[in-house]
Amino acid sequence: MKQSKRFFSDNTASVCPEILEAIGAANHDLVVAYGDDPWTQRLDEVLGAFFGTQVRAFAVATGTAANSLALAALSPPYGAIYCHHEAHIACDECGAPGFFSGGAQLALIEGADGKLTGAALAAALDGQSVSVHSVQPAAVSISQATELGTAYRPGEVAAVCEVAHARGLHVHMDGARFANAVTYLGCHPGDVTWRAGVDVLSFGATKNGALGAEAVVFFNRGLVRDFELRRKRAGHLLSKSRFVSAQLLAYVESGIWRRNAERANALARSLGEAAGERLLHPVEGNEVFIKLGDAGKASLRAAGFEFYDWGPPASGEARLVASWDQDEHHVQALCAALTAS
Amino acid sequence: MKQSKRFFSDNTASVCPEILEAIGAANHDLVVAYGDDPWTQRLDEVLGAFFGTQVRAFAVATGTAANSLALAALSPPYGAIYCHHEAHIACDECGAPGFFSGGAQLALIEGADGKLTGAALAAALDGQSVSVHSVQPAAVSISQATELGTAYRPGEVAAVCEVAHARGLHVHMDGARFANAVTYLGCHPGDVTWRAGVDVLSFGATKNGALGAEAVVFFNRGLVRDFELRRKRAGHLLSKSRFVSAQLLAYVESGIWRRNAERANALARSLGEAAGERLLHPVEGNEVFIKLGDAGKASLRAAGFEFYDWGPPASGEARLVASWDQDEHHVQALCAALTAS
Amino acid sequence: MKQSKRFFSDNTASVCPEILEAIGAANHDLVVAYGDDPWTQRLDEVLGAFFGTQVRAFAVATGTAANSLALAALSPPYGAIYCHHEAHIACDECGAPGFFSGGAQLALIEGADGKLTGAALAAALDGQSVSVHSVQPAAVSISQATELGTAYRPGEVAAVCEVAHARGLHVHMDGARFANAVTYLGCHPGDVTWRAGVDVLSFGATKNGALGAEAVVFFNRGLVRDFELRRKRAGHLLSKSRFVSAQLLAYVESGIWRRNAERANALARSLGEAAGERLLHPVEGNEVFIKLGDAGKASLRAAGFEFYDWGPPASGEARLVASWDQDEHHVQALCAALTAS
Amino acid sequence: MKQSKRFFSDNTASVCPEILEAIGAANHDLVVAYGDDPWTQRLDEVLGAFFGTQVRAFAVATGTAANSLALAALSPPYGAIYCHHEAHIACDECGAPGFFSGGAQLALIEGADGKLTGAALAAALDGQSVSVHSVQPAAVSISQATELGTAYRPGEVAAVCEVAHARGLHVHMDGARFANAVTYLGCHPGDVTWRAGVDVLSFGATKNGALGAEAVVFFNRGLVRDFELRRKRAGHLLSKSRFVSAQLLAYVESGIWRRNAERANALARSLGEAAGERLLHPVEGNEVFIKLGDAGKASLRAAGFEFYDWGPPASGEARLVASWDQDEHHVQALCAALTAS
Repeated sequence: MKQSKRFFSDNTASVCPEILEAIGAANHDLVVAYGDDPWTQRLDEVLGAFFGTQVRAFAVATGTAANSLALAALSPPYGAIYCHHEAHIACDECGAPGFFSGGAQLALIEGADGKLTGAALAAALDGQSVSVHSVQPAAVSISQATELGTAYRPGEVAAVCEVAHARGLHVHMDGARFANAVTYLGCHPGDVTWRAGVDVLSFGATKNGALGAEAVVFFNRGLVRDFELRRKRAGHLLSKSRFVSAQLLAYVESGIWRRNAERANALARSLGEAAGERLLHPVEGNEVFIKLGDAGKASLRAAGFEFYDWGPPASGEARLVASWDQDEHHVQALCAALTAS
Repeated sequence: MKQSKRFFSDNTASVCPEILEAIGAANHDLVVAYGDDPWTQRLDEVLGAFFGTQVRAFAVATGTAANSLALAALSPPYGAIYCHHEAHIACDECGAPGFFSGGAQLALIEGADGKLTGAALAAALDGQSVSVHSVQPAAVSISQATELGTAYRPGEVAAVCEVAHARGLHVHMDGARFANAVTYLGCHPGDVTWRAGVDVLSFGATKNGALGAEAVVFFNRGLVRDFELRRKRAGHLLSKSRFVSAQLLAYVESGIWRRNAERANALARSLGEAAGERLLHPVEGNEVFIKLGDAGKASLRAAGFEFYDWGPPASGEARLVASWDQDEHHVQALCAALTAS
Repeated sequence: MKQSKRFFSDNTASVCPEILEAIGAANHDLVVAYGDDPWTQRLDEVLGAFFGTQVRAFAVATGTAANSLALAALSPPYGAIYCHHEAHIACDECGAPGFFSGGAQLALIEGADGKLTGAALAAALDGQSVSVHSVQPAAVSISQATELGTAYRPGEVAAVCEVAHARGLHVHMDGARFANAVTYLGCHPGDVTWRAGVDVLSFGATKNGALGAEAVVFFNRGLVRDFELRRKRAGHLLSKSRFVSAQLLAYVESGIWRRNAERANALARSLGEAAGERLLHPVEGNEVFIKLGDAGKASLRAAGFEFYDWGPPASGEARLVASWDQDEHHVQALCAALTAS
Repeated sequence: MKQSKRFFSDNTASVCPEILEAIGAANHDLVVAYGDDPWTQRLDEVLGAFFGTQVRAFAVATGTAANSLALAALSPPYGAIYCHHEAHIACDECGAPGFFSGGAQLALIEGADGKLTGAALAAALDGQSVSVHSVQPAAVSISQATELGTAYRPGEVAAVCEVAHARGLHVHMDGARFANAVTYLGCHPGDVTWRAGVDVLSFGATKNGALGAEAVVFFNRGLVRDFELRRKRAGHLLSKSRFVSAQLLAYVESGIWRRNAERANALARSLGEAAGERLLHPVEGNEVFIKLGDAGKASLRAAGFEFYDWGPPASGEARLVASWDQDEHHVQALCAALTAS
């Protein structure tokens, strides 16, 4: 069977060999369950070294769990969580932040290229009452890379954090594609997180080569509070935690976080160049948003390319995602098809 | 002590004599608690006659309880509830819909004069995914009169309901000022509710002369389901229910719903006329929104008038509300002050 | 129509004249809503004087609201709340504590005459793990008077509080029939509450003559925290708060709390004496639990007496409640019937 | 380093080679995420064949997720879920059922050897009011094998289910150690599940050789309803679902479910024989409960054996668990130590 040329999502990717090896290497002996194992116990240290500061880090298996548990640590049940109107937490997690927090509401903000600006956040907060009758502004969540494939510069993150902190809100970053953004920016992982003011990061590995591993990284360790109880009661404390932690350790220590992201980004970049003027947003990670028109989309699909529609129903927009293990010939073929169309 | 000239809200009003009398008249004998009393047992019949159709009606003491219990009957915990971005449920109930539903999210829609249009709702729903990754569109909530003092015409309500029903959503109406709207429109109460497609109404009496009494009125009786259990576990089933039900019966049967609304509307209308071109929205109930400027507001306040700021911080906008028992001399004085300014 | 001889519950009672008068007396002028009114603003002072210590007090309309809001202030969503297995919060509030807290579990403890003992609480806590895998012991709730009509002595309350506090749990008292217990004990209201270690009290007035008024009284004022936001989002902040607060003020200041309780207790006492050896628990308030047998119950009902079955289906047990406004002739008739049977 | 002789829990075990191979075998190509992959699509068929009936099966990564999502499908937020007082859902999941259901309460029932009987359930339900004031009996959850290492016979399961179904409750089985129980009983997997009336099963594989894989198996497919939305919003829909589904397929199809359980059971049996009269419950799976006394426990620990205390603080009870990959020499050494003591 001829393989499909899939550009649906980096979630379709396989597991990176180094990750599978790390799982295998951890598979010996009986070790204490629920995180009292040597792998999990290294998480704080290894992720602290990665980010260049002391952290408290907790492993979970899904991005939705990471985001929602982090947000529940930042927002009371009557809180308001500010985010971009196309944020993953707003559009793609079936209301998980409301579930984990016990009722918090998302306050959606518009912004070009998937980004929240400090000014837009300030304006939204200016318009929000803080009386007993209102939800209480509690947290801001930004995505790095954004849902539209762009990357916040350190200064952009800092501008958001500054407005948030000045008003008593904490800042969460959804880093499902964090490696892609940092690799694109060429900066230190700390530059777009704690140095810019981020309090808690969902540090994703799954999309970039892991089997299922995300870390909730608290830079602001005072916010950890009852996180472990909330994780447990949500069913997100894995009994055989070593196998999730081992993935995260390998992801960071072996350098595959960067190697995989570099490859995916490069492939996306070439797709973006082939898209030319049809490009909807700068390609600053591994996602390409393109205005193809309905005919253009149909033609690509007829040629065996698979991808998701994007935007409003009749917009003619599409999203192409390059995974870390994307077949290079498929990318070349898609570039050719895009150039020809 | 000279009394303040208060135009804060119709919640500042006193209780109408007929309502107090009805409470007194119900105050005899030992009657079974929690709704098995002769007053509560008449609610369905009396409200059914008022609306001209069969209904199931449940008494509660606050508007937030009425709205949130109604919405929890319409939306699952992972539901999306569509409403105007200035709706009371979005701005003034401290996240109650999220609490009562177990996590539902409000999806906010813009609209002139506080109104949701069928077209705006359709556009919002067009853009909403219904995959397993999304909150699931479940309900629409509109306010009659709106938060900006305007009244939906029957056709406007029908247009919203038509879009909602065509996509499987149910429609709630927040009628905290229902009497004011119906009185303004001069229509039958059924014309802007069930005949136009409304499934559930929060029928408010408190703002218009009651002590504390609202009814959740199900026109679509199939939606009642577990409403009574949800009301009980929210602490909104009053033990001495007769005294809430008696208020609602008197409110409807004595005609004070209309008499009080007519008076409040007329006073608001005269304020609106005095406001002239500074008026921000048509006066179709008992609320007046007016652009006074900061100096204008300060000058009125110096003259002893009390009212709330409205809109963004520096907008210079103010809200003036006429209550059923508003002192006519205060209104005349305010009209004079507005005309003079 | 001949009136039924009702001994169902003190919830069937009417409203005390002093309470209705207080409502009427508060019914003048426009006053600011949602608690910024002169009546509500006196609550802390008046209830503080009543209890003989500084308190923060919040008015709500139902006992379930008072209990659940208090417990949500004491327990996180993953908390365990210890109470007697027949407690009102366990048996009669449709899971409200779980709703308001966001998932807390009740841990039920057995105890004679409806009472929790310090020893039984200690034993229950000894057996409770406090690892991340367990619900976390957070609060204890005791009822005064108990669900079985008995009253905790100050020393009994202190014993429970001592165990609770030694292990970091806070103590709530459900005082739906607080006046009946204090009147029976002949002690100062402070003796069985804050002086014995109670942190928060649901101070009930409804069953003892109010229309619908309960106060959540924080003796431990540090626990108030976000109580007001939780009350609002639960729909329990009444807009015309003055009318609830005025009830509470009149209830305490006029002395009707004691007068009504004394009368109800005395009537219950005479029923208890008539019950003789069939009495199941000491009569220390206004409730009488009696083993009548099925034939005995049928015979009383045939004579026009109304009351609830109690206990397991075939136990032959019944509950008789004397209300503050119980017809003395009905009580005499019931005493005679009991004596004769 | 000399390896500890660990008998803490089967959660300390490693991953079975066949499971790791299955993960590796699934690791090719880009496949659609979130369950639209060939492995996940076979779950219903393969588990249906295993159980001998049509099922709907959903993969998750943890037992707490499986149990809580299943229970949330069976109980409304105001529901009561009946279970043994030592059930995992009651003692070891940090209140997860309350979280996932939105507030349901567990009703705990006593029973010998960790088992719920039909009679005990009937008695508990007889004593439970079903008025609007009560939590509503909704579900029963039993554990197979039980928390005390015993196995329900088919008739015992049927007796519980019969009582439950007769009163409108649905039945959940927590099968974290399902393979151990079925292997011990020597029956068909269907005999203690759907044929006996079980509606939904948490089918555990993690403790018995998987990395992290459990299936929620609906025998009563009408109960699936919104399960997938609830799973998603709880963060338990894994993006790379193929790797969880592949574990479950291998677990069932390769026969390791039985092979691993047989080995663990046999090792536990020999421990049970060595325990002799100190045994607290029959050994009908891979868990051994034994009264060792404090001195006995200290002596074993001094000899390098690791295990958990059980029961009340001073009970002298211990739990020994044999995992599928337990070192046989460790078991022999422990048997010798037990025999000698």
